[in-house]
Amino acid sequence: MSVLVVGTTALDSIKTPKAENPRLLGGSASHAAVAASFFAPTKLLGVVGGDFPTKYLRLYEGHGICLKGLERVPAGQTFHWSGEYEVNMNNRRTLDTVLGVIEHWSPKLPESYETTPYVLLANIAPPIQHRVLDQLKRPKFVVADTMDLWMNIMLPDLLRLLSRVDAFVLNESEAAQLTKEDNVFTAIRRIHRLGPRYVIIKKGSHGAVLSGPKGIFIAPAYPLRKVVDPTGAGDSFVGGMIGYLASTKGDLEKNLRRAIIHGTVTASFCCEGFGVVATTKTTRKAIDQRVKQLEALVRF
Amino acid sequence: MSVLVVGTTALDSIKTPKAENPRLLGGSASHAAVAASFFAPTKLLGVVGGDFPTKYLRLYEGHGICLKGLERVPAGQTFHWSGEYEVNMNNRRTLDTVLGVIEHWSPKLPESYETTPYVLLANIAPPIQHRVLDQLKRPKFVVADTMDLWMNIMLPDLLRLLSRVDAFVLNESEAAQLTKEDNVFTAIRRIHRLGPRYVIIKKGSHGAVLSGPKGIFIAPAYPLRKVVDPTGAGDSFVGGMIGYLASTKGDLEKNLRRAIIHGTVTASFCCEGFGVVATTKTTRKAIDQRVKQLEALVRF
Repeated sequence: MSVLVVGTTALDSIKTPKAENPRLLGGSASHAAVAASFFAPTKLLGVVGGDFPTKYLRLYEGHGICLKGLERVPAGQTFHWSGEYEVNMNNRRTLDTVLGVIEHWSPKLPESYETTPYVLLANIAPPIQHRVLDQLKRPKFVVADTMDLWMNIMLPDLLRLLSRVDAFVLNESEAAQLTKEDNVFTAIRRIHRLGPRYVIIKKGSHGAVLSGPKGIFIAPAYPLRKVVDPTGAGDSFVGGMIGYLASTKGDLEKNLRRAIIHGTVTASFCCEGFGVVATTKTTRKAIDQRVKQLEALVRF
Repeated sequence: MSVLVVGTTALDSIKTPKAENPRLLGGSASHAAVAASFFAPTKLLGVVGGDFPTKYLRLYEGHGICLKGLERVPAGQTFHWSGEYEVNMNNRRTLDTVLGVIEHWSPKLPESYETTPYVLLANIAPPIQHRVLDQLKRPKFVVADTMDLWMNIMLPDLLRLLSRVDAFVLNESEAAQLTKEDNVFTAIRRIHRLGPRYVIIKKGSHGAVLSGPKGIFIAPAYPLRKVVDPTGAGDSFVGGMIGYLASTKGDLEKNLRRAIIHGTVTASFCCEGFGVVATTKTTRKAIDQRVKQLEALVRF
């Protein structure tokens, strides 16, 4: 079945201790849609300005991503983020953000998007996530991702979103911030009370935790010796996850466990290059190989 | 088969945001020996002063721990550590350390200890770990634990130790400090080059990583909703690990994976009470139950 991904479509300028790369394809929806496309037909909902390079449109298309919902504003500027990573690649600092066309964007779903069964509300302002939900007709499974910024400036919108989605994805520190609870398993319990049946905590190189009606699942991260650029790893994780889920049948929670593993592996490829470069170069076969490796890495 | 545990036998005064507990039984050897005792006959090698409460000797004996190697110095003072945990229980601060009888201790192995097949050099000064190794006759498997302090003040002794042990255990930040390498898998590779065939990285609530000739094993931590006092969790982990290993036959590396899981579960009990209180109250049956739960928690 198909996947709808809404989020930011951006140009990222990324500085790491080893290199500097200006105006790469970035944004939560770009990373997530490319990741999802390895597993299921993927539709992109986003907005770009007149400065958005044609080669990036070709890149989406090369992954079979439907662009009917990618709005183009010729007179506008594409959302641009620039940031810098510290030596250990764990801390990053935003240098500059230009919202551009995303600032006043009110997404309008093409008719062919309205009945998409699997929906990823990738990281973007909660009011936009709501607006997409409002236009959907009986989606089968809705996942929302977010970031600390929205907890800081749009908490009521975010809380209202939690009661409208099946799964909510956030990282450890965001879970602590949202619940005022440092213990991740207690935080998860509190997040369930806010609405979502499934809570997924991203722990970066420490893996991820899923909590659902059948209990906890602890997922490892794929062991990487070298991280080139972790930007978009979280988006690739949720994208790979929902893409894989959309390709499955049967027991949802069991499939979700495997979906998380596929997400974690897709994210591992993302980290091996700048922007979406390494992700776009991978194949379903290479992903499946790493999934097999992970199975062996946790066996006891 | 039996296990020899050498390390500190201490009195710990522990302050957490919720409680204060003076002069609890503590020290790396106490935690590790109690943990090991659930799986294998355990021999303790340590030193205490005249102030060491008889009830703690009874506690060791209650776990069937052999005390032939526990030296008592009536005129001396037992090693005393006092520390304080911050709200999130992840950061701790040492308030005071009195080395007491441990300062000039030169361990002498009772004859019945010399041929112990499984040896844990729990966290203590590297020269003491060396002195124990010098007196052992063909041990089957030697594990050494350590802490950042020894990297700071006795690095040459520690490095020399690495070429004498089968497995070396340290936490993530210690691995980074030792190898000047932030990526944990690259750090592991460098530690192998320093000697040990097995490298085990403790990641606290994020689990542990084993690296051996057959590759990487990623172990989860047992999910705990409430941590009362994490003091000694790392020692309980290595103690449970070597105790379980000593109880197995066959493929060493396969057994070591399961040993790490048993160590992680034993450590989870340790965290649920002050000092060794919760560990001493658990049973082999309760440990096995949590191991079973962990098996289900990582299945995909």
